[in-house]
Formats: sequence, structure tokens, C-alpha cells
Amino acid sequence: MTSITREECVALDAADPLAALRDEFFLPEGVIYLDGNSLGALPRSTPDRVADMIEREWGRDLIRSWNEAGWWDKPRTLGAKVAPLIGAGPDEVVVGDGTSTNLFKVVVAALRMSERNVVLGERGNFPTDLYITEGAATLTGAVHRRVDPDSAELSAALAEEDVAVLTLSHVDYRSGTLRNMPAITRLAHEHGALVVWDLCHSAGAVPMDLSDSDVDFAVGCTYKYLNGGPGAPAFLYAARRHHAAAQQPLSGWHGHARPFDFSSEYEPAAGVSRFLSGSQPIVADAALESGLDVWAKADMEQVRSKSLHMTDMFLAAAAEIDIETITPTEHARRGSQVALIAPEEGAGYPIVQALIARGVIGDFRDPDVMRFGFTPLYLRYVDVFDAARALVKVVTTDEWRQERFAQRAQVT
Amino acid sequence: MTSITREECVALDAADPLAALRDEFFLPEGVIYLDGNSLGALPRSTPDRVADMIEREWGRDLIRSWNEAGWWDKPRTLGAKVAPLIGAGPDEVVVGDGTSTNLFKVVVAALRMSERNVVLGERGNFPTDLYITEGAATLTGAVHRRVDPDSAELSAALAEEDVAVLTLSHVDYRSGTLRNMPAITRLAHEHGALVVWDLCHSAGAVPMDLSDSDVDFAVGCTYKYLNGGPGAPAFLYAARRHHAAAQQPLSGWHGHARPFDFSSEYEPAAGVSRFLSGSQPIVADAALESGLDVWAKADMEQVRSKSLHMTDMFLAAAAEIDIETITPTEHARRGSQVALIAPEEGAGYPIVQALIARGVIGDFRDPDVMRFGFTPLYLRYVDVFDAARALVKVVTTDEWRQERFAQRAQVT
Repeated sequence: MTSITREECVALDAADPLAALRDEFFLPEGVIYLDGNSLGALPRSTPDRVADMIEREWGRDLIRSWNEAGWWDKPRTLGAKVAPLIGAGPDEVVVGDGTSTNLFKVVVAALRMSERNVVLGERGNFPTDLYITEGAATLTGAVHRRVDPDSAELSAALAEEDVAVLTLSHVDYRSGTLRNMPAITRLAHEHGALVVWDLCHSAGAVPMDLSDSDVDFAVGCTYKYLNGGPGAPAFLYAARRHHAAAQQPLSGWHGHARPFDFSSEYEPAAGVSRFLSGSQPIVADAALESGLDVWAKADMEQVRSKSLHMTDMFLAAAAEIDIETITPTEHARRGSQVALIAPEEGAGYPIVQALIARGVIGDFRDPDVMRFGFTPLYLRYVDVFDAARALVKVVTTDEWRQERFAQRAQVT
Repeated sequence: MTSITREECVALDAADPLAALRDEFFLPEGVIYLDGNSLGALPRSTPDRVADMIEREWGRDLIRSWNEAGWWDKPRTLGAKVAPLIGAGPDEVVVGDGTSTNLFKVVVAALRMSERNVVLGERGNFPTDLYITEGAATLTGAVHRRVDPDSAELSAALAEEDVAVLTLSHVDYRSGTLRNMPAITRLAHEHGALVVWDLCHSAGAVPMDLSDSDVDFAVGCTYKYLNGGPGAPAFLYAARRHHAAAQQPLSGWHGHARPFDFSSEYEPAAGVSRFLSGSQPIVADAALESGLDVWAKADMEQVRSKSLHMTDMFLAAAAEIDIETITPTEHARRGSQVALIAPEEGAGYPIVQALIARGVIGDFRDPDVMRFGFTPLYLRYVDVFDAARALVKVVTTDEWRQERFAQRAQVT
């Protein structure tokens, strides 16, 4: 913590072009929330927005709100609000269902577009990505292989195997490693593979341009950096060039070309709507829309610059007390979270608990990873300073050992 | 309307054991809502329940609410609240995703449990059921055939074809025809087929007992008779005897035996949780829970008795003015809605519009069906009387022709 003073942090906050956005969020008293990479904070506008949707649109206007309040079109209007955050066209994104379901849809659609039958995934990916991809492969008779995408294994596998589809997380959920989306997408295309990116830990965390990167398909959640609320509906991106050919397997009536004809034969909609299946939870959509409307006021480059500054600060504090990290120090390879390795076996959980007792909320992932997410929309530099100071204090004193002792006492 | 007087209806309401439940709902002034078969009315407790979930559980308690507020277990706790309404065990139902997605899961799971490869569906089923079943069949190499389930075609097809799975709607969305669940399930089993019932138009509308009827799988929505809110998460039932063998294709991490091990290999949970995939929209779950808690106070036999009395009244009024119906007059074959055929071509839509202008909300389905749903929890006998009187007035005077004229004038 020698590198920056609290006063300098106060000055940084005063000069921060994003500072005003913090007022758009409800943040509990006495808490420094470094878990927005898991569940984003509540926008202040959300309770009223949801109440209005429930009381007026549902309670008073009832069934007519499917048209008049735009419920029917929410997957598209919310998709158009996600689009600028990921560098996609407004007609290339829909919102609905969950990330797992959407991943299944695009992986099967991509497999059907290829003559090949290998799906390449990443060994350490978030489990649901592995399970869903495996499930999609099993169902379609494809083969699922896994590589380390941050090593030469990836290019070797693309060169050696007839890969139909490559599925990767843009930012790794554990280490926070950011992958080079344009380069990997180009490499995959050179080898004749389609690419599906999982943006769960990068949408709202790092700038990206799916169009410029020539990405084929992508999915992502809206309840982390995008502040849509716990389990909020996910998004699905499909490049415009694939709309005509892509056939997703969950062919429900919302994806029909003319749903209100109630035809007995399925005919997919012309655009990205063909990726829709059934009705979506409109109460949850209202909360999500509120979060996306806050994001409409944010400049993604400013978010990125502040995020890197904050993770630099936190990494520097960890380095000073010799805490190891699995988060890349190189900016180009870092998302918006810091993952630290516990200084000894069994120390990770009590350290995170001791920090929580001090009001600094991060999380712990077995066996020894402590994760801290940085959300520039509602975190101040002084918060990062105070959190870093708390980390140093907890690790360098006996505080975490006392926490462990207290926990053991509770168990017995 | 000669058969009953308004005074008699007032007396029926006074003696109605369900009368007090009407106060649990918000119903707009001057409206008789006969569209609860499409979107259920708003329970009065819902706005506060959702506000508390958003402000306290999400805003204040943040990430810890996944455990402390029971978010993680919502698919199971909500499932246990749906269970008594459909005659299932509390450990046989989960809530999450949409009806279309859940139908895909159970149809594929059922196909995988059979050596056969024919899926038998119903010709006039709600389109998404046809599309999803067709999609599941295509993906798994099965064959999808369709029959009229209310004719001898059904038993003939079960006898002639090697049917793996029979998928039917318990109540037809258009005519309101109720199918004999125990008899059809038994017949299918006798022919070696598994049965998937769609309960969208019957859950909360008619009593049923999935356990006694030996049903294999079922899905259904919660936003019609169950008052969960527009597009609220759907439910999925799987008979306990199938839990060990059933393998659903959307194998996400919420269906894993030990999700927080973050294992890279999928191992399905032991019970009905194996049908889960990813995180669910908790804001929408809060609204749904509020609706289910009202239902916990209702006696399904009383609901059925009142429903039949109401649809009898409405059918009698239609008969008096020679309006045809496609809803069975036989109680055992009737759900909780009445579908009338427009007296002449093009009359259906203006009649429904003229009724709406009088505050009686039903809906219209091309080409000529006028649908009216009856929801005993919040409809009074006098409402049905008044609605029937409005129908008679609109149809027997020029009112609907004027409505049509007004609409044409708007178009030109």
C-alpha cells in the first residue's frame, strides 16, 4: 500500500467521470461490495420500475399488456439494450431463458451448420458450460474435447482436429483471465470452426466488439456486471450472417415466423427471434431493464480504464504481502476481477470470512481461491484502498486464524 | 338467462366457501375478467412480496441471499408448493425455465428411456407443444406422429405403432376439452408408452392426481390459473420411479449432484433436481410464490364445483341465443373455460371487442373462437351473470356490428 495514499484515492474519485453513477445504486451501509462479478448491486430505480410493472401493467391492464406494455417484444427490446455493451447490432441479440439453455441452443445450432463433429471446449471452464456442451454433443452424436485455451494446446487442437465448434469463456470465472477474442475467433475461422463465446464474466466488465471480431455466437448472463437481479434472464447473440441458416433445437412458438397464426407447422422467424422458445418472466425482465438503463449512461472505455486501475491497486497490495495471484498482471489478459491464492492450505475461507466481518465482501472457491470483483459503476477508489488495507490487516495479523478458530468452535 | 336470476347469484356468492379469496386479488374497477386462463389476476400480496425480495434480499443482503433467503432452493420449495395442486409428491416437482424448455427436457428424457422411437402427439395441440416435440424428435432421430386424442385415433395409434412417448394437453387450449388422465395414461402404459401431460390449462383449473394416475412426466405454466405473473417460471413433474433413470439433455450445473464441487464432470442429482439447468429469475420466483401461497388456502374440489357451476351458467346463456360452442357440455370432459363459435364469419373479433368495451374481458382466437376463462378464486356468480347478460346484449343487438364498423373506420 506504499504506492498510493487514501488522499490520492479521494482525489481520483473526485475526478472520476463515472462517479455520479454510484448514486444510481443502493449499497448497504458499511459494506465494500467486491462480489459484483457474482451478483451485481441493486439499481435504485429497480424497485419502482418493478412495482409499476406489477401494479399497473399486470394488475390493472392485465392481458392487454402483452401488446400495449411491450411484453411480447421484451426479448428483442432488452436485446437491443444489451447489444451496444457487447458491440453487436440491435437485431443480433435477444434476452430470455438462462445462460445454460442459451448455450445449448447455440452449440446445437452451430453443430448443425457444420459437416464436422468435434466441439472443442476449455478444460477449466465454468462447469455448466462443460456439462451443457457435453450434453449437446452427446445428443447430436458429436465429440467433445477439452483444451487449455491459454496455452498452445488450443491452436494445436484447431490445427489437428476437424473442429466444428469452439466454445470458450471470454473471461475465466476463476482466475479472471481475459482471452483475445478477435485473435482466437480469427484462428478458429482459419481452421474452419465456428466460435461460441460465453460472456458471463466479461459483459459489462470489459469492452468488446462482437461484430468487429466476427464472432459467430455468444451467450451471457445479466445478473453479474449488468445488475439485472439474481438469476435474471440471459442474452443470446447470433451474427446476422447466420440468422437464415441457424436452426436451434428448442423450437418454441416465440421463435415462429408468425406465432399468432397458431400454425401446426414450425417455421423459424427470419431474424434472431428464431432463437426464442417460450414466454419469458416479465417481472424479472422489468428488473433487468432497469439495470440496462443505468448501463446506457456508462462509457465502456471509462469503465475499463477505472477497472484496470482498481485491479492494479488491489494486485499491488496483495503483492506487497506476498499473496500469490492467478490473475494475469498484463492488462490485455485481465478481466475485472482479482483471484488470490490463500497463503496456506485452509486459509482461503477464513480470510474471506474475516474480510466479510470487516464489511469487505468477496467470495471463496474451493480449494484455495479468493475472488474479488471490481465494478466501476458503484465502487470508489477509496473503497478499493480500504478493502486492500483490510486484506493486508487480515492476512498479516492473526485475524483470519481467529476466524478459523471461531468457525471450528461453531462446528463442534 | 331464464334459468337463474341475479338475486340467486347474489345468494350463491353469499354462500360460496371460496368467496373470501376474492379479496386476495387486485381486480381493476369495472372489469369482469374472463381471461384468467391466459394471464391470472394479480394477488394483492405480490407487490410487497416482490419489493421485499428486491430491497432486502437482493439490495441489502446481496450475494448471501442465495443461501440465507433460500434462493438456491427456490426450484424445489416452489415445486413443493405446486405439488399438492396437481396430486404429486413434494419431491416430484421443480419450478424453473419455461413450459417449452421443460417439455423438451421431459420428451427427450422419456425417449431415452424407451427402445422405441415414435412420439405421439395431438393434432390440435397448442403450437409450442407440437414444435418442441417435433424438435426433440428430429434431434434424437425419433418420429413424431399426431392424432386426435378425443377420437378412436388415439387408441388405434397406440395399438398399431410402437409408441415410445405420448404427449397430450390435459385441457385443450382452444375448446377447453378435459382429457381423462387416468384412463389415457393407463391405456398408454398398457401399450408400453410413457406419458407426458401438459397441464398449462388444467393446473389450478381442475383437480388431478398425477400419483394416482401413474403419470410419468408433466409440465405446466404458472401464469394462468396459478397467478404467478406474466411468463412466470414453469413447473416440471417427474414420477419418483423415473428419477434414477431419467437423463434430460439440458444438463446444467443446478442439476448436478454436487454443484458446489465445481467438478468438470456432470453427475446428475439423485432426485427431481436433475431436471434443473441454470440459475432462475428470483424476482419472478418471488411473485410466483405469492400466487402459490394464495392457492394454499383453496380447496381444489370447491374450485372445481364452482367452476362447473359457472361454465354451466355461461353455456346456458350462449345456448339461449343459439351461439354454438366447442366446449363439451359433459362435466367430465370440460376444463374451466368456455369457447364459443362466432355466429357468423368475421363476428368473433368485434364481439370480443364489444364485450371488452363493456368491461367483460375474454379473448379471440382465429378464425372464429371466443374464449372465456372462469377462475373461481376471484370471480363471483354475479360477475358470470353480468358477463352472460353482456354477451346476450352484444350478440342480439347491433352492438358488435357497430364495433366492427368502428374498427373498419379506424383502419381506413
